[in-house]
Amino acid sequence: MKSKIPLLSLIGGGPGDPELITVKAIRAIESAHVILYDALINVALLSYMSPGAKAVFVGKRFGCHALSQQEINHLIVHYALSYGHVARLKGGDPFVFGRAQEEINAARGNGISVQVIPGISSAMAVPAAQGMPLTCRGMAESFWVTTGTTCSGEISSDIRLAAQSTATIVILMAMNKLETIMDIFIANGKSETPVAVIQNGTTENEKIITGTVKDIFFRVQCEGLSNPSVVVVGEVVKLHRDWLRQLSHSGANSSTSLQPAYITNQ
Amino acid sequence: MKSKIPLLSLIGGGPGDPELITVKAIRAIESAHVILYDALINVALLSYMSPGAKAVFVGKRFGCHALSQQEINHLIVHYALSYGHVARLKGGDPFVFGRAQEEINAARGNGISVQVIPGISSAMAVPAAQGMPLTCRGMAESFWVTTGTTCSGEISSDIRLAAQSTATIVILMAMNKLETIMDIFIANGKSETPVAVIQNGTTENEKIITGTVKDIFFRVQCEGLSNPSVVVVGEVVKLHRDWLRQLSHSGANSSTSLQPAYITNQ
Repeated sequence: MKSKIPLLSLIGGGPGDPELITVKAIRAIESAHVILYDALINVALLSYMSPGAKAVFVGKRFGCHALSQQEINHLIVHYALSYGHVARLKGGDPFVFGRAQEEINAARGNGISVQVIPGISSAMAVPAAQGMPLTCRGMAESFWVTTGTTCSGEISSDIRLAAQSTATIVILMAMNKLETIMDIFIANGKSETPVAVIQNGTTENEKIITGTVKDIFFRVQCEGLSNPSVVVVGEVVKLHRDWLRQLSHSGANSSTSLQPAYITNQ
Repeated sequence: MKSKIPLLSLIGGGPGDPELITVKAIRAIESAHVILYDALINVALLSYMSPGAKAVFVGKRFGCHALSQQEINHLIVHYALSYGHVARLKGGDPFVFGRAQEEINAARGNGISVQVIPGISSAMAVPAAQGMPLTCRGMAESFWVTTGTTCSGEISSDIRLAAQSTATIVILMAMNKLETIMDIFIANGKSETPVAVIQNGTTENEKIITGTVKDIFFRVQCEGLSNPSVVVVGEVVKLHRDWLRQLSHSGANSSTSLQPAYITNQ
């Protein structure tokens, strides 16, 4: 039996592939009275909703447009107090550039309990789906996840430090500042470091371009890639080529024009 | 119908909570003929195995002991060629300090196809379960995941760079070098930065100690915390206190002596 006690579940909807959702997330979606969902989630996940539940699109791409964060916070509080359990379904993981804390504070300020259900972040899953581990013995002993474009339009100062490290660097929301970001890496002696840009990772519309720090901006422009994309800078990008070689040998999904996310089960 | 075509699925088993497994991972476990599983996975996940399948423990804690990586590689190849689909069930995410690339190379070298199924990394889920986002506007605009102890016993040089950044720093396998690592942060003017150490995160045996860079080693020694633990360094640790306050108000799971991973559904 469903209760009407106000509750906010912040749910990580994963990177795009609807099978990359957790059992815990599915249970929360099933028990919710209202689902507030983002532009970046796969709408196939709404099939887990209970028949009487209400789905509301609160689309917000790249953190800056459409419904303001304040309007979303207001909807969370309104629905939780009126209907009970609100599932806030976000792309990736709610605690990785998800502005979850603002929604948590709004809920708590109105006496609404909160639970957080982690999701598979695109920062990890999208490179993985293209055969690139974030850490690999002898190549990268750590990884750093950062954002390119902030709402204020500034580039994070952390990118300058990251460019000096041996870490694999993953940059989300980077496409509007890609040239400037690559210039920071060039200034730190990383012109020849491999780079991959993956758009719509883990979905049917996935596209990948690889190159080096010095030429990736040119290549991306030629191919017309844009957000939502994940940028990976580091030696692990080289492993993508081995991955492609395996795919061409096994023939898996070779009918698609771009590289598939996974080989399918035999 | 199951085929006997050799296949290796590298599966992320998540951080400990058996509900933090993906649908894709469950399907791979169900279809596998042999499961090779690590010490850090929750054995409840083996309940998804097909009745005729074989489960083999290849326990390896902290990357250095018990079965060698070479022996595990050998078992993967042996079982895939003899039985067909081998599911390699790893704690967390296979591409985050999971030595996945070594297993991929062993499989490919023997003509065995490989698929990688990402998992929820403890680097993200364990702090999340204690109310700490890895990024938060005004607190941390990036996060860095690194390891404390390598097999060679050296501390990663990246920790020195990380200590200069505004990133939230997550350090896995850090307990044997905790004092030395904290000294690096002190040398970079971070004595007062908050730190949390979480042992057995997202499980019933979860324990957390919070403090600052200058006193966390002392606190951890008093409480006897050890691996497997996740160390979080950064301002986001302060949000853990708000989280506890909510739990004490809602009364959720308050019968446990330590802080619960999640509030349960009402």
